[in-house]
Amino acid sequence: MRVLVLGGDGFCGWPTSLYLSDKGHDVTILDNLSRRKIDVDLEVESLTPIRPLGERLRAWKEVSDREIGFVNIDIATEYDRLAAVVADQQPDAIVHFAEQRAAPYSMRTAATKRYTVDNNIRATHNLLVALVETGVDAALAHLGTMGVYGYGWSGSAPIPEGYLTVKVTTPDGELEREILHPANPGSVYHMTKTLDQLLFSFYAKNDGLRITDLHQGIVWGTQTDQTARDVRLINRFDYDGDYGTVLNRFLMQAAVGHPLTVHGTGGQTRAFIHIRDTVRCIELAIENPPQSGDRPRVLNQVTETHQILDLAKMVSDTMGVDIAYLPNPRREAEANDLIVTNDQFLALGLEPTTLSDGLLAEGTEIARRYRDRADPSKIVSRSVWRQGMETAEDLLTELPADES
Amino acid sequence: MRVLVLGGDGFCGWPTSLYLSDKGHDVTILDNLSRRKIDVDLEVESLTPIRPLGERLRAWKEVSDREIGFVNIDIATEYDRLAAVVADQQPDAIVHFAEQRAAPYSMRTAATKRYTVDNNIRATHNLLVALVETGVDAALAHLGTMGVYGYGWSGSAPIPEGYLTVKVTTPDGELEREILHPANPGSVYHMTKTLDQLLFSFYAKNDGLRITDLHQGIVWGTQTDQTARDVRLINRFDYDGDYGTVLNRFLMQAAVGHPLTVHGTGGQTRAFIHIRDTVRCIELAIENPPQSGDRPRVLNQVTETHQILDLAKMVSDTMGVDIAYLPNPRREAEANDLIVTNDQFLALGLEPTTLSDGLLAEGTEIARRYRDRADPSKIVSRSVWRQGMETAEDLLTELPADES
Repeated sequence: MRVLVLGGDGFCGWPTSLYLSDKGHDVTILDNLSRRKIDVDLEVESLTPIRPLGERLRAWKEVSDREIGFVNIDIATEYDRLAAVVADQQPDAIVHFAEQRAAPYSMRTAATKRYTVDNNIRATHNLLVALVETGVDAALAHLGTMGVYGYGWSGSAPIPEGYLTVKVTTPDGELEREILHPANPGSVYHMTKTLDQLLFSFYAKNDGLRITDLHQGIVWGTQTDQTARDVRLINRFDYDGDYGTVLNRFLMQAAVGHPLTVHGTGGQTRAFIHIRDTVRCIELAIENPPQSGDRPRVLNQVTETHQILDLAKMVSDTMGVDIAYLPNPRREAEANDLIVTNDQFLALGLEPTTLSDGLLAEGTEIARRYRDRADPSKIVSRSVWRQGMETAEDLLTELPADES
Repeated sequence: MRVLVLGGDGFCGWPTSLYLSDKGHDVTILDNLSRRKIDVDLEVESLTPIRPLGERLRAWKEVSDREIGFVNIDIATEYDRLAAVVADQQPDAIVHFAEQRAAPYSMRTAATKRYTVDNNIRATHNLLVALVETGVDAALAHLGTMGVYGYGWSGSAPIPEGYLTVKVTTPDGELEREILHPANPGSVYHMTKTLDQLLFSFYAKNDGLRITDLHQGIVWGTQTDQTARDVRLINRFDYDGDYGTVLNRFLMQAAVGHPLTVHGTGGQTRAFIHIRDTVRCIELAIENPPQSGDRPRVLNQVTETHQILDLAKMVSDTMGVDIAYLPNPRREAEANDLIVTNDQFLALGLEPTTLSDGLLAEGTEIARRYRDRADPSKIVSRSVWRQGMETAEDLLTELPADES
């Protein structure tokens, strides 16, 4: 297949591009390198020494003898160029990662709230309009989030895949309806993914676009079989308060001897997936698209759920590091249950990679190897959901002196 | 009250500004005059000879001895100026009309689809962010649309005001939940209002903003007590295929002797409200805002429902003009039932103005008086929902020779 990967330089996009290329697909990355530029603004870097995209692509050519194309483009603001690329490449599939993806970053300031909405909604909408205008019938797979459902809404019921069956009382009796699952996003970032869902529903209905929305859990892990082939292909590893996601952040904190930062009680239950499964899921999604005329297909891209405190305890026990309970910067329930349906990916043949000592060790290994690259002042999340929720300075934990 | 009216130069915004000023509120209009500029692009004009906004405001000062302020600003792109105006004016209420509001215009081209989404979502989101950033606790009333609900979803059940009670089956038995009514928008324009709803839900939940979303029906009529006081205050009257809404369009067509253009069978049932009730409803909404911490209040701003063909027949019978059945440029059901709840406005004291011969005559009178200003080539809708739905040239109806 000819595949465009939008946002193919990012944490999920890069390993996906390599995986699809390795599997024989003809891949072109569209990216404006915004993830690297945000790091410049935040004065932080990937813990792993990622190489410039040009060097990454040359290294991939060396080790695999396969070409990956690259177009440096901002799809949120360069619509005409985007439409021209789509018309020119005539892709069979498009994978859309090209959105600002950190909840804390989306809540930092008026400017980052606005950037997240403007960028994400325009990127998605421009892509949909470009498909309609060019008439290119590509299967579109979009990276959504489990966060669209919110947490705690369903009680003991498993979260279904996108659509919920409800009963409505009418004068003629009870009607059964299947509706898009009610949205309950927890941040401006998550909110943009709930808007995306409505864009997808409309363009599938009106224009017959074939769309799969992947409601992904929190990704952990760093390397895939492809990114591990050469150090120049290494994937990014975010540990900072804005972009570092919870399990990878714990592994890094343990590796450098920083207390594990638990927000609130740690009673939050979240869904997880390893980066190796992410890339497999993407291929399954674009190889099994819906038909034109179908509503968007929604798949829950998760393999397991864990309570945050359990993860912290596991890492703490294994690696002998303390847990620091910090005030929660987010407005969310202290604790919640979470049961998630992921039947569709299992039926498509996904064999989940689940949390294991071996994989934890791999993550710790990477974090240890590159610990000298860490800026400890960037570890704790400083973005808050509302004014007045800031963590007091005296609660911030210092990094112990380097013992290596 | 100190009130900002965003989009205060438009068809609903202008009479609302005058009404609120007349009632003693201190009104400032924020507008970028985009509605007039779109007319320039479409090479069409309001049938009524509306005056430049500066002249309108001077005339209002003359007849009422009251000042209305004006800031020429694009709130979708000039965030810093918007936040400065909000901080400076410290409004008690904000009425938000500042969105592209025509469904056919939103479906014309890739550019108008993109403009509608970019303008509407950024305008709404910038406003919400400005309220959070400045800490101004204004009651926000936003003009939504009945089109967010879609048509035909509810069968014989009345459409509730924003929220729907549903039952969900869980392992612990049936749970009852009140959810935002499922969205089923019929155009890119309507879709933007479904996105707005999710923005409102999030900012009410996270930041305690006090928001009322008014799901308005199709507005008809032209003048209010205030706009009728001086010809320089006259409200706009749109008759063109993009911006002319159905009942006003029929009145104008009858006045100039053009067959009434019914799309499809005319079996569509829609909700209506007279412009005089719109302005009353806006005042009721800002005088009765929700509390901080409440979910957004949703009010159905409608007073009656009619089937399109019944309206066409009524106008045809009264005024002796033919009905032309044209292919429907929209993707929608041929016919639908529609029952709408509007209990909240009735409880707040709204006394509906309903369709009557007198009001129809008033509209016809205005259309007849200004018929020489009409460009008959602009009457039929030429925007289509998908390629291939265009009305053939030989189905287009010529305007008869002027008989006056």
